[in-house]
Amino acid sequence: MANGCVMWITGISSSGKSTIAGEVEQKLRELGVPVENLDADEVRANLSPNLGFTEEAIDENTKRLAWMGKMLSKHGVNVLVAAVSPRQRHRDRAREWCPNFMEVQLVCPLETCQERDPKGLYARAARGEINDIAGMHTPYEQAENAEVVVRTHETTPEEATQAVLDKAKEMGFIPA
Amino acid sequence: MANGCVMWITGISSSGKSTIAGEVEQKLRELGVPVENLDADEVRANLSPNLGFTEEAIDENTKRLAWMGKMLSKHGVNVLVAAVSPRQRHRDRAREWCPNFMEVQLVCPLETCQERDPKGLYARAARGEINDIAGMHTPYEQAENAEVVVRTHETTPEEATQAVLDKAKEMGFIPA
Repeated sequence: MANGCVMWITGISSSGKSTIAGEVEQKLRELGVPVENLDADEVRANLSPNLGFTEEAIDENTKRLAWMGKMLSKHGVNVLVAAVSPRQRHRDRAREWCPNFMEVQLVCPLETCQERDPKGLYARAARGEINDIAGMHTPYEQAENAEVVVRTHETTPEEATQAVLDKAKEMGFIPA
Repeated sequence: MANGCVMWITGISSSGKSTIAGEVEQKLRELGVPVENLDADEVRANLSPNLGFTEEAIDENTKRLAWMGKMLSKHGVNVLVAAVSPRQRHRDRAREWCPNFMEVQLVCPLETCQERDPKGLYARAARGEINDIAGMHTPYEQAENAEVVVRTHETTPEEATQAVLDKAKEMGFIPA
């Protein structure tokens, strides 16, 4: 069984990670290849609802996602990971663990993300209820070596999805 | 892709979980079916070396193993989980999450386990260094509805392995 790939989508909150992961997932299903979409928020909700957002907690969650990616891709599953994963080391660990790895950096100005705010996270921050948003209160490190960079405020989700798929094909991770 | 199965091997420390998981894994490899062996201790060491052994920590680790089993089996992988998983609810959650589930209860008197003690855990307890061994200091709940029960002090590892494989075949989880 050939290894699947891990497409690791990083970006600040509301930059479009879940949207693009969902669209790529759908396209991969249409291609008939095994796929699993691991959303960092869902994994938290399922496994560790009380984990929180300290540096240590984020490290724990991204480590778990990387390990899941490693395990699933080892058995031929193509894995989408949508995770803020604010530190370069979070993505580097995943890259180290997963043989067929792609880092997808979503870039979007904070102001645009604050306007989108589908989860109401920035609204909560504005009310002073939370103060641990990466890229606002805590560091978010842009990827140094991403295979794909998408500026989601200047790109449609369809274009972003296509860019990810094109790169995956180019790298031989999915059928051309 | 047909679902894989999850063979969840429970028992107190030194009852033979890793040994039997390793032998079943080997037999499944020989059968040519996809297999993953998730050892609770290894998962801890890889993901959460500082997790500890409180009720909450054990709950966290068994939940993670159940979730991994669910994910991998969903993609056709046969998963072995070797975990003390001392509470019936730990195994019941895994059963609920994993469609093709088998609980394997290893039974072995504490005294025999203390003599075996390959990890030196009971020796550490005797020196007063640890006091959180399930079945000795903290509760270990025997399975109420295990598909396979093996008395490892009266059975060779080969016999135990065969009992697990026979049941898996009977349940239609692996080719007859």
